[in-house]
Amino acid sequence: MLHALEILPHQRNQGLGKWMMRRAAFWARENGATHMSVACTQDNPGANALYTSLSMTLVGKYHYRKRSEAPNMTAKQPTALDLPMVDPLPAPIQKYFDICADKLGLIPNVLQAYAFDIDKLNAFTALYNDLMLSDSGLSKLEREMIAVAVSSINKCFYCLTAHGQAVRALSGDPKLGEMMVMNWRAADLDARQTAMLAFAEKMTVESHKIVEADREGLRAVGFSDRDIWDIANVAGFYNMTNRVASATDMRPNDEYHAQSR
Amino acid sequence: MLHALEILPHQRNQGLGKWMMRRAAFWARENGATHMSVACTQDNPGANALYTSLSMTLVGKYHYRKRSEAPNMTAKQPTALDLPMVDPLPAPIQKYFDICADKLGLIPNVLQAYAFDIDKLNAFTALYNDLMLSDSGLSKLEREMIAVAVSSINKCFYCLTAHGQAVRALSGDPKLGEMMVMNWRAADLDARQTAMLAFAEKMTVESHKIVEADREGLRAVGFSDRDIWDIANVAGFYNMTNRVASATDMRPNDEYHAQSR
Amino acid sequence: MLHALEILPHQRNQGLGKWMMRRAAFWARENGATHMSVACTQDNPGANALYTSLSMTLVGKYHYRKRSEAPNMTAKQPTALDLPMVDPLPAPIQKYFDICADKLGLIPNVLQAYAFDIDKLNAFTALYNDLMLSDSGLSKLEREMIAVAVSSINKCFYCLTAHGQAVRALSGDPKLGEMMVMNWRAADLDARQTAMLAFAEKMTVESHKIVEADREGLRAVGFSDRDIWDIANVAGFYNMTNRVASATDMRPNDEYHAQSR
Amino acid sequence: MLHALEILPHQRNQGLGKWMMRRAAFWARENGATHMSVACTQDNPGANALYTSLSMTLVGKYHYRKRSEAPNMTAKQPTALDLPMVDPLPAPIQKYFDICADKLGLIPNVLQAYAFDIDKLNAFTALYNDLMLSDSGLSKLEREMIAVAVSSINKCFYCLTAHGQAVRALSGDPKLGEMMVMNWRAADLDARQTAMLAFAEKMTVESHKIVEADREGLRAVGFSDRDIWDIANVAGFYNMTNRVASATDMRPNDEYHAQSR
Amino acid sequence: MLHALEILPHQRNQGLGKWMMRRAAFWARENGATHMSVACTQDNPGANALYTSLSMTLVGKYHYRKRSEAPNMTAKQPTALDLPMVDPLPAPIQKYFDICADKLGLIPNVLQAYAFDIDKLNAFTALYNDLMLSDSGLSKLEREMIAVAVSSINKCFYCLTAHGQAVRALSGDPKLGEMMVMNWRAADLDARQTAMLAFAEKMTVESHKIVEADREGLRAVGFSDRDIWDIANVAGFYNMTNRVASATDMRPNDEYHAQSR
Amino acid sequence: MLHALEILPHQRNQGLGKWMMRRAAFWARENGATHMSVACTQDNPGANALYTSLSMTLVGKYHYRKRSEAPNMTAKQPTALDLPMVDPLPAPIQKYFDICADKLGLIPNVLQAYAFDIDKLNAFTALYNDLMLSDSGLSKLEREMIAVAVSSINKCFYCLTAHGQAVRALSGDPKLGEMMVMNWRAADLDARQTAMLAFAEKMTVESHKIVEADREGLRAVGFSDRDIWDIANVAGFYNMTNRVASATDMRPNDEYHAQSR
Repeated sequence: MLHALEILPHQRNQGLGKWMMRRAAFWARENGATHMSVACTQDNPGANALYTSLSMTLVGKYHYRKRSEAPNMTAKQPTALDLPMVDPLPAPIQKYFDICADKLGLIPNVLQAYAFDIDKLNAFTALYNDLMLSDSGLSKLEREMIAVAVSSINKCFYCLTAHGQAVRALSGDPKLGEMMVMNWRAADLDARQTAMLAFAEKMTVESHKIVEADREGLRAVGFSDRDIWDIANVAGFYNMTNRVASATDMRPNDEYHAQSR
Repeated sequence: MLHALEILPHQRNQGLGKWMMRRAAFWARENGATHMSVACTQDNPGANALYTSLSMTLVGKYHYRKRSEAPNMTAKQPTALDLPMVDPLPAPIQKYFDICADKLGLIPNVLQAYAFDIDKLNAFTALYNDLMLSDSGLSKLEREMIAVAVSSINKCFYCLTAHGQAVRALSGDPKLGEMMVMNWRAADLDARQTAMLAFAEKMTVESHKIVEADREGLRAVGFSDRDIWDIANVAGFYNMTNRVASATDMRPNDEYHAQSR
Repeated sequence: MLHALEILPHQRNQGLGKWMMRRAAFWARENGATHMSVACTQDNPGANALYTSLSMTLVGKYHYRKRSEAPNMTAKQPTALDLPMVDPLPAPIQKYFDICADKLGLIPNVLQAYAFDIDKLNAFTALYNDLMLSDSGLSKLEREMIAVAVSSINKCFYCLTAHGQAVRALSGDPKLGEMMVMNWRAADLDARQTAMLAFAEKMTVESHKIVEADREGLRAVGFSDRDIWDIANVAGFYNMTNRVASATDMRPNDEYHAQSR
Repeated sequence: MLHALEILPHQRNQGLGKWMMRRAAFWARENGATHMSVACTQDNPGANALYTSLSMTLVGKYHYRKRSEAPNMTAKQPTALDLPMVDPLPAPIQKYFDICADKLGLIPNVLQAYAFDIDKLNAFTALYNDLMLSDSGLSKLEREMIAVAVSSINKCFYCLTAHGQAVRALSGDPKLGEMMVMNWRAADLDARQTAMLAFAEKMTVESHKIVEADREGLRAVGFSDRDIWDIANVAGFYNMTNRVASATDMRPNDEYHAQSR
Repeated sequence: MLHALEILPHQRNQGLGKWMMRRAAFWARENGATHMSVACTQDNPGANALYTSLSMTLVGKYHYRKRSEAPNMTAKQPTALDLPMVDPLPAPIQKYFDICADKLGLIPNVLQAYAFDIDKLNAFTALYNDLMLSDSGLSKLEREMIAVAVSSINKCFYCLTAHGQAVRALSGDPKLGEMMVMNWRAADLDARQTAMLAFAEKMTVESHKIVEADREGLRAVGFSDRDIWDIANVAGFYNMTNRVASATDMRPNDEYHAQSR
Repeated sequence: MLHALEILPHQRNQGLGKWMMRRAAFWARENGATHMSVACTQDNPGANALYTSLSMTLVGKYHYRKRSEAPNMTAKQPTALDLPMVDPLPAPIQKYFDICADKLGLIPNVLQAYAFDIDKLNAFTALYNDLMLSDSGLSKLEREMIAVAVSSINKCFYCLTAHGQAVRALSGDPKLGEMMVMNWRAADLDARQTAMLAFAEKMTVESHKIVEADREGLRAVGFSDRDIWDIANVAGFYNMTNRVASATDMRPNDEYHAQSR
């Protein structure tokens, strides 16, 4: 796409714009593009005429994000997207956030990121809470270990920061948190946890090769079918959130870095 | 792990069990194992004594799934895990399933799979419905195209079958569904959809390399920041479900294959 | 390469062309190019003088494909290359095509693609017929299963479409065809066919790691050395045709999509 | 698969065989197997009874290759498969081989390998000769360069040896042959040959990502559509033969190593 | 290799050992092995006779590490190899270690690991000191950033721990250290450092694709040819040490984890 | 980065430069850049003013290499970097080079490359000599085999050429050298050397997955812990030098190609 085609006043109406467009088109194609688009303000009749003459059709409209235009946007906006939180927040959400601030000393940025749409926030937190906090044959620490081992493969800065802290906090072992971030095989884990993380790793890198023998391997170290469901869903969940966080440049709260060291 | 160590009667109490265990241990190690475990029935004092003599400790208990033992389990169990549906289903869920059966001619196996735990089913369907059915700058077809393109990379049989059908149905173009399953680049898409699928592909294979320029590329073909959020969350969602389906051997309803051809 | 350098009349002969070329050269280099070339019509002395002044040498000639210029070319041209079929076709080829049209209801596009050169068509069909249709310890269905499993890894739209149809037709099992296209491990195959496809997969993704134990594995499930030869050559063949089809954007006949569903 | 289950005479008929089979089955499953098979001589009723008692079914028959049993087989057998040449060779083939021996000082092992079946040999040589020796916009050296660059990615010992020699011989530049074997980017090639090998490389490692811009890139350095066809088919051919050679452990003639150094 | 073949007394001299060996051989082959070896104590004539009868030849000798046998070995041995430090250390080395202990509060385990051979220790430290501490156009922090970015790709627990701490200490920015460990693209670096790390990354994952344009890219952001040499050698060095540390299970000093947080 | 922004005289001071810069910025961003830089001569006040007006800051200085400016630089410069050898060389180095010339018939280019800084040369040669020439349980040939097998994976033209020659010379078997270059699995190695190269390969491609079982595998074929250290350090060393050679385009001496054939 071409963003900023400006023709200087004394050169306008001489075909230069058309030439520039064509040249840009060729360059674009050389770089592997198969389509070309321009972004143009609607109140620029000249430019729109030019593009029409080049057989281009309107495919969409957008306007640049200007941080000053977005009333709720601040330097602490949790992602690279201009999606300000609902303001004011509904009472239950505000209360939830207050509890977070009180208990954790922070409101996790992921919650602030989803809070531009309360339905999406609720759907996300419901799934998160069920997976990470409800009853399970996996301890909360084990679920966090899966979270970090998966995030290490996907190199997700948000999740490694937030959940690496969780492993440190829940285990009381800062080194364990570091090992999950850096290379889970460096940790001296028992058979159960080794099998659990190896399965989560296989799910992350080549899920289509999982066969019954992989599930049998989990059963053999003592996991029930319900536990296997939980391992699969926790590992799956971070394969979702890692990608959402990276795709939106979601930033973890700075406070995590120094905690539980 | 070692599953079935049996010593024949006339050879018992001669140390053969111990030798077998040691030999198995060496073989296991040669195949990359770092731990060894056995599965043993609790009412076998001899075997348990053997393992204790080998410095093995109890890490867990399990019993083999026997299909006949599981009252709700049938040949049509939707996954390889023995997690039968809640029986009877709560009224709202039963009603929801009835609507599915009525409208779609089937109850999607993914719903049956989650129905062993109503909280999990509700959390899953809430997120699914928000992402795939609620208002968005992306059409429902576009969201299904993302679903299939992502599933093609992850080679998920469940999702390719179910959502490939959805692309065929929503587009009225069976060939488009096939292209999404086989290689989305084979389709002659416009700039908007090309950029959308290229972004979903990058999220799937190397999300950690996404930078602002990738998001700008989406804005330039007309996607708003809210649209980018939706692309990221739909692509993220199928990176979760693909892995959950493969990890549990979730099977699509056979009806999908012939529909909308 | 630079395709379209135009200097507006009032700006000609001012060195702008030279500057543009240099600037383009730098941009190209920044994008990883190590050489630069231009395409220029021979009857443009000014441009050719410019390029000569920049120490560029003539490396080749070409002209743009214009579909209207190609007498045999139609909207149904089977590849992205302008290589029209020999016209008229030699009698034996015409007869072969007529038989195809009669029996299959179509002339496979791959044959039409090769028909720009009868020697190449004959060499291709001779090899194809020997591999896929002549006597073998592998059934025709098994050979098609290899074709599709290999094509699934290489994501070849042509071969997945044409040979996916063949699996559906030969097996009478549309679902089997879909499984080969989507993920062959999803199919419940016996030991023989599992070993066969695993060998074809290893050939496709890391052939240099094949050792005698891999061949022994095939022998152990009942394949003869002659069968192994056939597996190797069928899997090899689709590793050729997948790439030729993708490299030339070969398009499958639309009729395949709806057949044998 | 299990190859050699022998029960010592004094231990027979005690269930040990059954136990061994079960234990082997568990081990096999732990290593990822989803099926189990045995190889058993037909005139061993005891063993066949055992396997039947374990619900195993007959899936095939084979016998071990014994080199002494194969009349035509010698230490110079060109592959790891016991597929001796037709003996005597048909006159035209014998004459062709005599010409090879006369002109090249050797009969290429690939021809000897295919000569167990004259139809297969003819199909292979017809395709090879058309691609590598007939008229083309690519020189014979360029076609050999593609052969070696592709074979370097696939690490095929046969093709790197035989065609590396061809590059040395045709170019008169031993170093060029080495560069094609080791890393084609080390060679100081012109734009045309750089584009040609980059295209062959993309075909080899990610053919499904080839788009029209890739073909345009070839046209821009002077390749015609017919030339592109030839590049695609030569690169495709070695993606076949590399894999066939590795799958069958085809051995190059030793003479190649010292030639044209 | 087979480690522990024991035949119970009452079963000896009945051919069972031979049978076990053969069976183990077949299993090994099925798992991809192409050779078989056994480890056997020299003063066991029976076993050695058995192996000789199986046409096995002596390829080496070794004895198991027993930590108690190794006089210098303690729970803090820095690697998984039994290579105790020279004792006593030569005076200059002892002085160097004392300085480390004094200044850093620890003697880096990598130095203790190499101290089993003073020549090797000296060669390693000379190269390390020249690369990381001597004059360079790269700051010490930049060299440590390269160290950690490379180690993150290679997932080396030792180097990520030790050099992650160095980035935190030299930058005074704990978050920067975490970003280098987790995903260097998450850091908001300037053009110079971005280009530097991108080059180090390309060296680490696909060095054979580096061309002059990559070096030009470094020059363009201000790096001299001498600087490029230093980037290449620092990035190269950690591609060595990462692998040596992982291959020997080198363990970082625990003190690093809590430092500079 | 932008290299060559020239505004023609009659167009200067019209804002064109600014426009060009902005346009270049957009293009750069579309190609994934996150920063932009220019290179500008310091005595061009106009250009520097332009860049300052665009909020760009000075990040570095450099000047183009001109071969004629570098007094020691010749056509035989061993790398793509302009780092001429110290002239005159210190006496011990000159003597060392004379010995090389006398014994080998050449001064290895790698030594000439490092000779721009005598400390770096000494550090490199000390490590090289210790690893490749000092006492070890690995023969010199075995160390060279590791060097070539590692270099084959990394596709390093320099190391494959120089150390491929070394394998040919030390073994007296030209074919063995070719096999190490092309595909080490093609060689018929014994258990010891197979295990050695498999370990070196794992170190090269996925060192973070090495566990104790891998080291045990080496011990079982007769390697001592000291031998394992040597394997690890030799394999590590070539993972360094391969990358340094590729990053600097280091060229092997031409003489190697024809030697020991």
